[in-house]
Amino acid sequence: MSVDGLGVEDRSVPGLAAAEARAQFRSGVGRPTAGMVPGRAQANLISVPADWAYDMLLFCQRNPKPCPVLDVTDAGAYSTPLAPGADLRTDLPRYRVWEHGELVDEPADVVAHWRGDLVSFLIGCSFTFEWVLAEAGVPMRHVEQGRNVPMYVTDRLCRPAGRLHGPMVVSMRPVPPELLATAIRESALMPAVHGGPVHSGDPAALGIEDLGRPDFGDPVDLEPGDIPVFWACGVTPQAAVTASRPPFAITHAPGQMFITDVRDEQYRVV
Amino acid sequence: MSVDGLGVEDRSVPGLAAAEARAQFRSGVGRPTAGMVPGRAQANLISVPADWAYDMLLFCQRNPKPCPVLDVTDAGAYSTPLAPGADLRTDLPRYRVWEHGELVDEPADVVAHWRGDLVSFLIGCSFTFEWVLAEAGVPMRHVEQGRNVPMYVTDRLCRPAGRLHGPMVVSMRPVPPELLATAIRESALMPAVHGGPVHSGDPAALGIEDLGRPDFGDPVDLEPGDIPVFWACGVTPQAAVTASRPPFAITHAPGQMFITDVRDEQYRVV
Repeated sequence: MSVDGLGVEDRSVPGLAAAEARAQFRSGVGRPTAGMVPGRAQANLISVPADWAYDMLLFCQRNPKPCPVLDVTDAGAYSTPLAPGADLRTDLPRYRVWEHGELVDEPADVVAHWRGDLVSFLIGCSFTFEWVLAEAGVPMRHVEQGRNVPMYVTDRLCRPAGRLHGPMVVSMRPVPPELLATAIRESALMPAVHGGPVHSGDPAALGIEDLGRPDFGDPVDLEPGDIPVFWACGVTPQAAVTASRPPFAITHAPGQMFITDVRDEQYRVV
Repeated sequence: MSVDGLGVEDRSVPGLAAAEARAQFRSGVGRPTAGMVPGRAQANLISVPADWAYDMLLFCQRNPKPCPVLDVTDAGAYSTPLAPGADLRTDLPRYRVWEHGELVDEPADVVAHWRGDLVSFLIGCSFTFEWVLAEAGVPMRHVEQGRNVPMYVTDRLCRPAGRLHGPMVVSMRPVPPELLATAIRESALMPAVHGGPVHSGDPAALGIEDLGRPDFGDPVDLEPGDIPVFWACGVTPQAAVTASRPPFAITHAPGQMFITDVRDEQYRVV
C-alpha cells in the first residue's frame, strides 16, 4: 500500500508517525485520514453532555457493529490512553458541532466549543483494518483513487437506547470476487474496528439507491467484477444525533479521524 | 462431551432445552451450570440501581476481557432478548444479594429483593466456549470431574470507572500442552465470552497462591502434564461490588449462570 504524503512512515518508533500527523492537524491541516500512518488504529469521535453519556454508551453496547467503543473519557477530559499527549479538541483534521441535531459548525478545532461536561467516545474505525486487508492483497480502491471512503445511510435501524435512535451508516469498499472471502475473514478478526461486513453485493438490500451518490465521503469507482462490500461505520452516532436531536454534540468530520498510537494488530483477536 | 443430567439435549428445537433448564431453576433447582445445555451461551448477571448503571457499563467497557456485555436491560425490566420469555428474577439456579459490598443473602430467586430501579447486565461467560473447546478435543476437567469451575481473585487490578474498582477474577481450566494452542485460538475467536486466556502456566504470575483453594467454585484435579490456563471471569463485577461497596446489587452465584437461547457460535467472529 502506498504511504501517505506526510512522510511519517517510520514504524520503528512507536506512536511517532501518529503524533506527527496529529501535530499537523493541530496546526490546521484538514484532510481525510484513509491511508495515513500505516499500522496505527484510527477512531471516530463523539462527545456528548454527561447527562447523555449513559444513553450513548448503551447505544454503543446495543449496536456493537457500527459502534465498537475503544475508550470513553471522564467528563470534561480531552485526553485518552489511546494516544498519550494528544488533545481531542485539536488533534483531529476536522470536527462537526451539532445543536439539537443540526450541524452548526465544521471547524478545524473545537477549543471554543468545548464544555466541561462533555464525555467523549472513541469508536473503532474501519480504516484500522485497511492495512491488514491491503497486506492480504485486497486493493483499497478509495486510497488508490485518492478519495475519502464512501459512506451511506442505510434503511437498517439501530437498536434504540434511551433517547437515542437512528439508522446504521456503512462504508463501502469494492472487492474483487476472488478476494471477498479474505476481506470478510480478515476484517471479522477485528471486531473492535467493526469486524466483518454487514452486507456484500446489491446496495438495494441496505436501501442504498445509488452508489455514486454517497451520503458522506466520495464516490469510488469499481473495477470490472468488483463486488461492493459494506461495513458498519462509526458515523452511525452522527446519524443518531441527527435523528435524536440531543442539545449538543461534537463529532469528527466523516473520514477525518483521530489517529491513535495503538497498533492495529492489537485489535486482532488472533 | 457428556450431556447434562436434565435430559434437555435436543439441539433441533431452538431454545427449548435452555427454556427447560430455566424452568427447573425457576422451580427451585440450584446447581452449577457448566456442561449444561450444549450449544447455548451462558451469562453472568449483575443488577445495580440505575444511578450506578453508568459506572457499571463504563467499568465493563474499560475491562472488556472480564466484563464483555451481552445485554443491558432498561431500569426495572427483568426480560432480555437473549432469552425471550425468561425472567431474570427467577430463572437462574442461585443468586447473591449484596448490600454495601456485603453478601446478605443467597436465595433461589430474587422476587422479594427486586426493585424498580435495577438495571441488569448480562455478561459473557466462558462456559459458552467450553463446547467449542470440547469439540476441538480439549478436555473439560471440571465437567469430567462433576465440579464447578475453579475461580480465583487475582492481583491484577481492573481499570476503575467512576465509583467502581476492584481486582480481576479468573477461571482456570487444565489443558494438556499439545492442546494449548487450540484452546487459546478457539477461545480467542469468541471475544464476547472473554476471548483468549489472560495467562497460562504459573499461578503465581496472577498472585494465586494455591490452585487447590479457589475463591469460588471447586478445586479441579490436573492430569499429569496439564498446564493451568486462566481466562478472565464474569465474577469480576462481584469483586468490584465487594471492593467498591455500592448500596445494593444482585448477582448470580458463581458458576450458576443464566442460560440463554443464543447459540454459542453466534459469538464466534469467524
